[in-house]
Amino acid sequence: MRTSDEITNRAEEVVGRCQKLARFSEDPSSTRRTFLSPPMHDCHKEIAGWMTALGAQVRIDGAGNFRGFYAGAESKAPRLLLGSHLDTVPNAGAYDGVLGVVLAVALLEALDGRHLPFGIEIVGFSEEEGVRFGTPFIGSRALTGRLDEKLLALKDLRGVSVRSAIEEFGLNPREITRAALGEDILGYLEFHIEQGPVLGAMKRPLGVVDAIAGQSRLEFAFVGRANHAGTTPMHLRYDAIAGAAEWIAAVEREANKVPGLVATVGAIEAKPGATNVIAGEARLTLDARHGLDEVRIRAVEALIREAEEIAKRRGLSVSQKVLLSQSAVAMDPVLIHEIEQAIRKAGCEPYHMVSGAGHDAMILAEKVPAAMIFLRTPGGISHDPAESVAIEDVAKAFECGMHLLDQLSSSSTFHKRMYRA
Amino acid sequence: MRTSDEITNRAEEVVGRCQKLARFSEDPSSTRRTFLSPPMHDCHKEIAGWMTALGAQVRIDGAGNFRGFYAGAESKAPRLLLGSHLDTVPNAGAYDGVLGVVLAVALLEALDGRHLPFGIEIVGFSEEEGVRFGTPFIGSRALTGRLDEKLLALKDLRGVSVRSAIEEFGLNPREITRAALGEDILGYLEFHIEQGPVLGAMKRPLGVVDAIAGQSRLEFAFVGRANHAGTTPMHLRYDAIAGAAEWIAAVEREANKVPGLVATVGAIEAKPGATNVIAGEARLTLDARHGLDEVRIRAVEALIREAEEIAKRRGLSVSQKVLLSQSAVAMDPVLIHEIEQAIRKAGCEPYHMVSGAGHDAMILAEKVPAAMIFLRTPGGISHDPAESVAIEDVAKAFECGMHLLDQLSSSSTFHKRMYRA
Repeated sequence: MRTSDEITNRAEEVVGRCQKLARFSEDPSSTRRTFLSPPMHDCHKEIAGWMTALGAQVRIDGAGNFRGFYAGAESKAPRLLLGSHLDTVPNAGAYDGVLGVVLAVALLEALDGRHLPFGIEIVGFSEEEGVRFGTPFIGSRALTGRLDEKLLALKDLRGVSVRSAIEEFGLNPREITRAALGEDILGYLEFHIEQGPVLGAMKRPLGVVDAIAGQSRLEFAFVGRANHAGTTPMHLRYDAIAGAAEWIAAVEREANKVPGLVATVGAIEAKPGATNVIAGEARLTLDARHGLDEVRIRAVEALIREAEEIAKRRGLSVSQKVLLSQSAVAMDPVLIHEIEQAIRKAGCEPYHMVSGAGHDAMILAEKVPAAMIFLRTPGGISHDPAESVAIEDVAKAFECGMHLLDQLSSSSTFHKRMYRA
Repeated sequence: MRTSDEITNRAEEVVGRCQKLARFSEDPSSTRRTFLSPPMHDCHKEIAGWMTALGAQVRIDGAGNFRGFYAGAESKAPRLLLGSHLDTVPNAGAYDGVLGVVLAVALLEALDGRHLPFGIEIVGFSEEEGVRFGTPFIGSRALTGRLDEKLLALKDLRGVSVRSAIEEFGLNPREITRAALGEDILGYLEFHIEQGPVLGAMKRPLGVVDAIAGQSRLEFAFVGRANHAGTTPMHLRYDAIAGAAEWIAAVEREANKVPGLVATVGAIEAKPGATNVIAGEARLTLDARHGLDEVRIRAVEALIREAEEIAKRRGLSVSQKVLLSQSAVAMDPVLIHEIEQAIRKAGCEPYHMVSGAGHDAMILAEKVPAAMIFLRTPGGISHDPAESVAIEDVAKAFECGMHLLDQLSSSSTFHKRMYRA
């Protein structure tokens, strides 16, 4: 193992490289690098430079994902995937996604030319945020063979389809099939900033993700009777906002009651929406997430019942529409176990957590064992220029990554997987 | 007194005339007759026709108000004002405002040429709803000498000022001063639909208005921290919508607790307003009304304190801005007493109430004794084509009006007022 100074230097270089990549942007004064936008070329070129220096083979696949392959000790060795996404939201920070790719490169560099019993493929996903086409995970879906005609036909605000965008970027959509993973994959590992305040509150630099939460998104509409705010006494009202407010309190109560549940009303709109008119209608959204699908589904059902009871008692009607119901995705238990050990070897106490946000690992988990390591995110701030990471935390993540590669090289479970492949 | 059949015929004629006036509209398929709009000419012409047939003197004053004077028995007799407004909201019903003018004409007709100890001036106010210039009571303010330069400079959506609109209607703004009331006014009486559900719920055809409620309008802003709805656990949130919802419940609780208070949150808006983002800001309005200013002011203060407590407990901040604070206006006790008796003589039990909505009587009360009689409004529906009145209720209002004119003709209090004038 390296000295603490060497590790700090590596961590500083990782952070510096993330900040450099943040300058490849569609906007002159902030970071914005959406799917297949011109600055993505510069981003690819920069990473390719680092990787070819290590003797890795580099390509951009048909879906615009960066792929860099660092061979294993033997020619037929299976491969481990390391990576994250290279696209950003508008007015982004420098670390969301990018850090996972840059850290993976640093881990290869730290091998000092050694080759492991497995090859390592670094993947920089082209699209995770869903900004350009309103649909996320376009890049990772190409690896699982799910970038289908329907997705290719999606259009951005300028009317450009995914297919045309791929061509405009200089790629061939017919090559998308070659982006798909083969049978030789041992697993997928992703380092990512937490994007939340939990590790900060627990004073832990690193977290190991047990599962990516399932999500329900619904829209509710309470309907009452619009009426004069001056001439309608309280007991003769059918106030849709008052009903909605009572239900918002119920949402908060339910989430506080059920461990691990998060439930949010993020949007609300009332009609007619005038100071002096009792609202006849209130529309609002519900976002509920939990690591266990049955807990989430039970909570959503309870909240629907609660909305109906509130509406009934108040002489309102209520209806709801499910916009999204996405199952929780468990991370691979073998990898979780190895990560836990690696975090301990790096001198930290691992914190087990459920990711409330979706990630590429969720898509990859459909086909290959996948796992994630979270880095503490100061203030829980992400998707913002103020997004940051502490050098010490990046150093811990780097150490953890080195231990992990060592462990996986000698793990008997991994040995079996390699044989199967 | 007339026979019941005669009275019903009068009431039917009143309703028919209201429906006829409703056809003088800016819109071909619905009623919309805003301040100084072309169909107001036809409306004036129609009413003028009915009144000149009675020997009344008719004019349109400098602010576009219809004024029809039916002389008293003596040339120096003081005058009683009867009336309401002739303008409407968009997509209006046929009775709001108009009914009070048409009913007043019917009362003059029922005199069969008799002249009373006072003259009667019927006023059809040109502007009460505030639709065209966003400011209500422009017509009645001319009678109290308050149609000032500031009001005259207001502009409508087309950029036309009140002054220009008066000229475009064929009137002379310099004549506005001649619209002001003289010293010979005994009082102002206004029949108006209730525009609320109270008389319906109490099964009373007629109500006597004790006061027009004072109003407070405020805007509140709760500010928390926008954050990821998936990655931020419940106990680390600063959710502005959740805080606002708790306060909306407090508004409703306060209004339910304080007799006669109505308090409404009619508009709410959250930022960023996305399904998957905890709201960092929620703006909402408060409309609070009560017949007693001190009760209203105390309630508003309590609600401000409550907002501050909720914000403090949740780690939010809250600020508020007063948009309007309008004092309650008491109706004239002598007229209230006479109205009460007249309603009883018409065979009804008078219901004392506070008007939650503003009316021309509120403006006139500044200068002259003013009072209002409310007619039951089926379903509390107004400002809508479904607005209606029952023929029997109009008949009761007509009977009440006839008794009232009789009473005032012989009332000793009124006698004294006449002498003073």
